[in-house]
Amino acid sequence: MVRAGSAGSAGVTAGPTLAVVAREAGVSVPTASKVVNGREDVAPETRRRVTEALDRLGYIRRPRFDGGRAPRMVDLVVHSLETSGAGSVLHGAEEAAHDAGLELVVSAALTRGRPEASGRGWLDKLVLRGSSGVLFHLAELSDPQYAWLRQHRIPFVMIDPVLAPPPGVVSVGAANWQGGVTATEHLLALGHERVAVVAGHRHSPSADARIAGYRSALTAAGVRHRPEYVRHAGAGEGAAGRRMRELLELPEPPTAVFVGSDRMALGVHEALAERKLRVPDDMSVVGFGDLPEARWLTPALTTVRQPLSEMAATALRLLLRMMDGHRPESTRTELSTRLVARASTAPPRDVSRTPREV
Amino acid sequence: MVRAGSAGSAGVTAGPTLAVVAREAGVSVPTASKVVNGREDVAPETRRRVTEALDRLGYIRRPRFDGGRAPRMVDLVVHSLETSGAGSVLHGAEEAAHDAGLELVVSAALTRGRPEASGRGWLDKLVLRGSSGVLFHLAELSDPQYAWLRQHRIPFVMIDPVLAPPPGVVSVGAANWQGGVTATEHLLALGHERVAVVAGHRHSPSADARIAGYRSALTAAGVRHRPEYVRHAGAGEGAAGRRMRELLELPEPPTAVFVGSDRMALGVHEALAERKLRVPDDMSVVGFGDLPEARWLTPALTTVRQPLSEMAATALRLLLRMMDGHRPESTRTELSTRLVARASTAPPRDVSRTPREV
Repeated sequence: MVRAGSAGSAGVTAGPTLAVVAREAGVSVPTASKVVNGREDVAPETRRRVTEALDRLGYIRRPRFDGGRAPRMVDLVVHSLETSGAGSVLHGAEEAAHDAGLELVVSAALTRGRPEASGRGWLDKLVLRGSSGVLFHLAELSDPQYAWLRQHRIPFVMIDPVLAPPPGVVSVGAANWQGGVTATEHLLALGHERVAVVAGHRHSPSADARIAGYRSALTAAGVRHRPEYVRHAGAGEGAAGRRMRELLELPEPPTAVFVGSDRMALGVHEALAERKLRVPDDMSVVGFGDLPEARWLTPALTTVRQPLSEMAATALRLLLRMMDGHRPESTRTELSTRLVARASTAPPRDVSRTPREV
Repeated sequence: MVRAGSAGSAGVTAGPTLAVVAREAGVSVPTASKVVNGREDVAPETRRRVTEALDRLGYIRRPRFDGGRAPRMVDLVVHSLETSGAGSVLHGAEEAAHDAGLELVVSAALTRGRPEASGRGWLDKLVLRGSSGVLFHLAELSDPQYAWLRQHRIPFVMIDPVLAPPPGVVSVGAANWQGGVTATEHLLALGHERVAVVAGHRHSPSADARIAGYRSALTAAGVRHRPEYVRHAGAGEGAAGRRMRELLELPEPPTAVFVGSDRMALGVHEALAERKLRVPDDMSVVGFGDLPEARWLTPALTTVRQPLSEMAATALRLLLRMMDGHRPESTRTELSTRLVARASTAPPRDVSRTPREV
């Protein structure tokens, strides 16, 4: 499934050249070029006229060609190369780049601390080099950073953005709501009625969508919502383990839990082991992501597969169209998730002992 | 510990310029440049003269500068971006590249099938683009590919090569022998005397070194060698599981096993679970690598940490010196490994019941 968000206002025709922008602004092409390339030696009034013309005409930076010999380069800027998902993102982006005859420059700039408030810093490098386009993975860009990218007409696409990006920014994600539905339906089908959720950060749009999917599945099955069964944790294992301990201390603890990420599921797993509770006998656990690690857990983790490689490849193909001067048909693309049933889920114990009539 | 191999024959002074090579060969600089850049429009006799001069003078390709604005690029060519170790290699290489003001172009060319026998194919791309230097991870290059890289004077360093590279090729690896000693000593110290090894591919220099370390530790402890306790498997989980089953069928099965990689340890783990044998009660298991997955196993895997990030960073710094025209002091650098003791190892059952006098 590919779910498309609302279409942008612009059409799909290729954008104007810098010569057209210069004519519109009443300046020379080299002057317009200076503005696009972030050079300082332009009078403020001239810069303003050029920027307005760029905005009005919807100019998109064109890659420089080197007589056709050097391949075009695109940038992949990731939050961290050490997280397990990074490999899948790189794999998908690299394959799609290769298929398009592009090469991929990889950097982990996002982990090198915040750039200055102006939004410049490491972004300068992309502008100076004349990056053809940028993919961001798990980025939290600031408003000045978004403004800087736009000012320099560098096309970019966000993969799995942490916060909701501003209007008009193109992003690719997983179908989080659908994933929440799938995970919860799986637990309900096994006979669980006390199903909790340990989700990621409050204010994270993906965590919100997963919880909304969980709620929808409960409603559809006619199962009562219990607000005390919905817990937020950070992305790490520790916080998820603490939320699990809180759930176990409820007067009526859950028999199953949908956890917002595989890494968080490891934390839940450890919290259960501390209490000598067994998975899935005492507690069914569903993760989210399907990291390579998921099948190393004992029992192997049932989880919702997030197609990270496919998300990255889709983002690269969208970026390619934008680099060629087209606006994508939609600003948000979601790729479908699916349940990977392994061994961490089973019917609740009381139900398995005295099976319900179906 | 950094263990250095034998020093190369050349000194550490910067190499000659292309102008010096052209003068030596009695050709113009553009002609010498054509040969270095792999162009076809050069007479065979001229090509031969230039190639000989390049060899004689030890010419190393210099990066092209773009008025100081565009950063230099180096290539990281990996076997696969989907293997768990790739993230650590990328992390180390990217950080070291960033520190040196370089950018990193990443490709997984090695998984795209064999290039033609001439050794060209994807290597052409590196030459045409004028790559400043290349890091290879887990590569098995053919002799024509090595020849092609040398012919075009592209400096390169191998990270953890699968097969022993030809003489003169610079490589960085883990101290595999030392790792084998450490793992085996850990098991001996727990009281095991029936210690087996399930190692990687036959003919793999790293597998050979790990087995040699295992043997050295047994000898030092005065423990009898049993040839039937040494098994080779491929890199995958399946073969490792089969070797474990063979070991269990011996008249006197081992009580502990040192496994050549964490992924192979997962296969061993599964083979033991099939027989309802528990780790570490019935069998102690030590892995090699310390992938992120290692701590997801239950019990968490005791393993030998291979410093992949540090290996990649070291390789990049060596490459940088070669790009600047220096020959590295040694062709082989090994970084030390260390034991990460988790929960998959314990004293053998009979010993723990009736502890030996120490």
